[in-house]
Amino acid sequence: MSKLVTGIIQPHRLDDVKSALEAAGVRGMTVSEASGYGRQKGHTEVYRGAEYTVDLVPKVRLEILVADEDAPAVVDVVVSAAQTGKIGDGKVWVVPVDDVARVRTGEHGDSAL
Amino acid sequence: MSKLVTGIIQPHRLDDVKSALEAAGVRGMTVSEASGYGRQKGHTEVYRGAEYTVDLVPKVRLEILVADEDAPAVVDVVVSAAQTGKIGDGKVWVVPVDDVARVRTGEHGDSAL
Amino acid sequence: MSKLVTGIIQPHRLDDVKSALEAAGVRGMTVSEASGYGRQKGHTEVYRGAEYTVDLVPKVRLEILVADEDAPAVVDVVVSAAQTGKIGDGKVWVVPVDDVARVRTGEHGDSAL
Ligand SMILES: Nc1ncnc2c1ncn2[C@@H]1O[C@H](COP(=O)(O)OP(=O)(O)OP(=O)(O)O)[C@@H](O)[C@H]1O
Ligand SMILES: Nc1ncnc2c1ncn2[C@@H]1O[C@H](COP(=O)(O)OP(=O)(O)OP(=O)(O)O)[C@@H](O)[C@H]1O
Ligand SMILES: Nc1ncnc2c1ncn2[C@@H]1O[C@H](COP(=O)(O)OP(=O)(O)OP(=O)(O)O)[C@@H](O)[C@H]1O
Ligand SMILES: [Mg+2]
Ligand SMILES: [Mg+2]
Ligand SMILES: [Mg+2]
Repeated sequence: MSKLVTGIIQPHRLDDVKSALEAAGVRGMTVSEASGYGRQKGHTEVYRGAEYTVDLVPKVRLEILVADEDAPAVVDVVVSAAQTGKIGDGKVWVVPVDDVARVRTGEHGDSAL
Repeated sequence: MSKLVTGIIQPHRLDDVKSALEAAGVRGMTVSEASGYGRQKGHTEVYRGAEYTVDLVPKVRLEILVADEDAPAVVDVVVSAAQTGKIGDGKVWVVPVDDVARVRTGEHGDSAL
Repeated sequence: MSKLVTGIIQPHRLDDVKSALEAAGVRGMTVSEASGYGRQKGHTEVYRGAEYTVDLVPKVRLEILVADEDAPAVVDVVVSAAQTGKIGDGKVWVVPVDDVARVRTGEHGDSAL
């Protein structure tokens, strides 16, 4: 069984998060562009030197499939590497996964991770 | 415990959906671009005045983390605010979430929402 | 009850995967852009004639809501249609879904698929 760890982080933290995940032995990741708001909607977040008082601040979305037992550690790695201490730093969550398949080989389960 | 509510909606409904979610007390959301098709594939949907007979019509993807007990109401809010009554209005679904973390503080669980 | 099948595939396989899903009776899909890396990070993948030794190779992300009992077959369809036998072919996973709603009608459950 595996888990999907999804993280919404500040774009300028992506390189550090990637390095930290590699150092922690994570072997794959999917990245996409997103935007969002958190509890301080209407308040200011800064992105690329510009202040965002608008609703949707640019973020990066990470998806990381991991074995069940690795999920808590991977969440911690993302949180630590993405953290600046400022509002808007992001959110990380964990969802159960029934099955994973590797397209190249068709194998399923943890060996497909 | 919490839930992830994902919605695929028509892009021109985003502002109304955001307002309705805020009015309902939802405190965060992630937005991304997507495209898709539903049951009427091959039939026509209209987007920005253009008819899409092609397969993939532009949509907006929403992700909203909520406490377990709030999920049904949040689904209803998205459905009501996104609804125009035309084909292609969208889809909303709910996935169980094992854990949520706030990056800035490292706190977990419902207080991280 | 339903499942969410998510696939990360090579962009040039999208048309074949769509056709295969339609032939298999799948009635809806959401597509978005992503990028990622797998186990051969640092090694080379080719995309549009260019070699990617960089970290993040462009991919396409598919999301397909299906009835519980259809999930294994839909995973197989995606794997078969996306497979080229080369590294970087992609990953497919299945997540449990508590509920689905159709925005146009407000109906819930399998009839909303
Ligand atoms: N409830 C939520 N559901 C989905 N995505 C969310 C939610 N809350 C925040 N996000 C996503 O995470 C990003 C960063 O959120 P943010 O770090 O501001 O959360 P927060 O709870 O307000 O924490 P902080 O107090 O540190 O600002 C948002 O831009 C949004 O993309
Ligand atoms: N089975 C599905 N899996 C994943 N995404 C879907 C699915 N069905 C629809 N979608 C997404 O929702 C968007 C809107 O779908 P749509 O509203 O046309 O659904 P529908 O079931 O055909 O309903 P309607 O009869 O009202 O048109 C699609 O463009 C696609 O992005
Ligand atoms: N553990 C993972 N978590 C999330 N996404 C992943 C993971 N592994 C791979 N992916 C996504 O799938 C894409 C394709 O991965 P890839 O096919 O290279 O996987 P792999 O396990 O390395 O298999 P192969 O040996 O066939 O290359 C990546 O670019 C990434 O977007
Ligand atoms: Mg915030
Ligand atoms: Mg439709
Ligand atoms: Mg690989």
